[in-house]
Amino acid sequence: MTGLKQELMDRVSRDLDDIEKALRASLTPHLDLVAQTAGHLIFSGGKRLRPLLNMLCARLCGYTDEFIKRFSTIVEFLHAATLLHDDVVDGASMRRGKPAAHLIYGAPVTVLVGDFLLARALSIAAETKNPKIIGVIADITESMCQGEIVQLIRKGDVGLTESQYMDVIRRKTGFLIQGACQTGAIIAGAPEDVEQKLAAFGFHIGVVFQIADDLLDYTSDTQALGKTIGADLKEGKLTLPVIYSLDKAAPADRQWMTNLIQRMSFSDGEFQRLVRLLHQYGGIHYCQEIALSRVNQAREIMDTFAPSETRDTLTMIAEYTLNRKS
Amino acid sequence: MTGLKQELMDRVSRDLDDIEKALRASLTPHLDLVAQTAGHLIFSGGKRLRPLLNMLCARLCGYTDEFIKRFSTIVEFLHAATLLHDDVVDGASMRRGKPAAHLIYGAPVTVLVGDFLLARALSIAAETKNPKIIGVIADITESMCQGEIVQLIRKGDVGLTESQYMDVIRRKTGFLIQGACQTGAIIAGAPEDVEQKLAAFGFHIGVVFQIADDLLDYTSDTQALGKTIGADLKEGKLTLPVIYSLDKAAPADRQWMTNLIQRMSFSDGEFQRLVRLLHQYGGIHYCQEIALSRVNQAREIMDTFAPSETRDTLTMIAEYTLNRKS
Repeated sequence: MTGLKQELMDRVSRDLDDIEKALRASLTPHLDLVAQTAGHLIFSGGKRLRPLLNMLCARLCGYTDEFIKRFSTIVEFLHAATLLHDDVVDGASMRRGKPAAHLIYGAPVTVLVGDFLLARALSIAAETKNPKIIGVIADITESMCQGEIVQLIRKGDVGLTESQYMDVIRRKTGFLIQGACQTGAIIAGAPEDVEQKLAAFGFHIGVVFQIADDLLDYTSDTQALGKTIGADLKEGKLTLPVIYSLDKAAPADRQWMTNLIQRMSFSDGEFQRLVRLLHQYGGIHYCQEIALSRVNQAREIMDTFAPSETRDTLTMIAEYTLNRKS
Repeated sequence: MTGLKQELMDRVSRDLDDIEKALRASLTPHLDLVAQTAGHLIFSGGKRLRPLLNMLCARLCGYTDEFIKRFSTIVEFLHAATLLHDDVVDGASMRRGKPAAHLIYGAPVTVLVGDFLLARALSIAAETKNPKIIGVIADITESMCQGEIVQLIRKGDVGLTESQYMDVIRRKTGFLIQGACQTGAIIAGAPEDVEQKLAAFGFHIGVVFQIADDLLDYTSDTQALGKTIGADLKEGKLTLPVIYSLDKAAPADRQWMTNLIQRMSFSDGEFQRLVRLLHQYGGIHYCQEIALSRVNQAREIMDTFAPSETRDTLTMIAEYTLNRKS
């Protein structure tokens, strides 16, 4: 878990090992090419945020069965499936510091392996024979697809509003992380109010995670990020720092930014000027504020649980999500 | 239902109307672009074989609830999802007599709408809260993806054996039609032996359907078929008529066929010569024999049920599957 502060790393390293083993075990019996294509992405240094949250939320609710290891792979497979398809859809060149899967295995195989992972996730969900869990997983999947479609439709649309943007990230990122926490509670047989609290906790983390991701595209560098910096804008994706700054910008700056966005290509110098404008008009700061407020809401939810190591770890993850560097 | 003989058409026209309405109802609340892209394929004259089998098998087992209409869309959505993705994967130009969806809406949207339909299917399955149904649907989805992947890997492979081919069509087509019949039995609460009989019935029909499809690619014409004739071979897909004939051909003819297959392009004259060779070496006849034997097995299964209009309609569908002209 790159960039994760040491204390958190020490707390979760054993769980992360279990997750790695379960991911490998669940892919191994399948076709070589499937395991290879899926593995290229899955075993390239993902943070395992989703399965980890799933496992920890189940544990917070008193769940101790070994099945959680296999169960937690559902949310990672769903995540991997959408990354594979997104990279095809966006024509992305890098993912986690490596060439995107479709550039190595071709778009056709990558699309089909994405489908397979989607199906794999739903098969494991079906193993629980728990209709509520299956319903949550199916809903998440549907919602993620809709989020991706809206994002695609809105490509290069400088009229995207903050609330439309929030709707996209809610669907694209929020629901899956929410579902990771919520299904952890459901599998543990937690009461409805606890399930809803953990769902809300996950949702806040999901929003923070996506906003932090969007910020990193303007504040990190390509090497630390493992993908091309400024990639969002090159793909015509307007994110919150830009939406906010566009709204606040003086007419001349707004016009300049609009041209850049609609062109979907820019020089290093132009990108640096854009980043300066995002700082100048408060877009960067605004995102940090929004994310911080969500982290606080997540922390407050955790504070309603009895003190435990698991609770503290979950709080630490909420804080890490905002402060991560990659 | 193009090409369907009138008597069968009269028997199922009301059910087909119900299926059309249910498909529209299930897509309507969604994003315009989703409904439009999915609708381009879904409402372009599909045969509705899968939802119809699902509905009829449920009725054969005494099911009378209205939910069957909505339920039957699951197998059509799964089918549509794989067609959308297949056409992207294969770079197909025509589907059901119209330009393939990806040529109109672009590959990115088509991939995402396919994902959405997959998710939609699984959400409706989850509505049943029946773990067995959900398990069957999830398994089918996984299996179909694997079938597509194997087919992709084997593109242009002249060493493909009959048993490898049968494995691909089992996964690609057989399991879904089997699942359509089987889940009809499950939702009706049929006993295990009846469920297994209907699963076997569906599996036979699935194999017949795929073999008939493969034959049509050599024996129909582009206008009747609604897609380019000879398309399988142009995509490097070896099907049973070719596999069988390659095996039986004299060395010189085998060499000529092999060259043609590996080139993945041919003139009209070359294609006509190939079709003559498929007749000459018995590939066409062999496929018809195999398919006929499966139709007979399907009919024998139906004969174990008490006489009813629904039973007779199902038997007719088995016969139609072999004799269809498009």
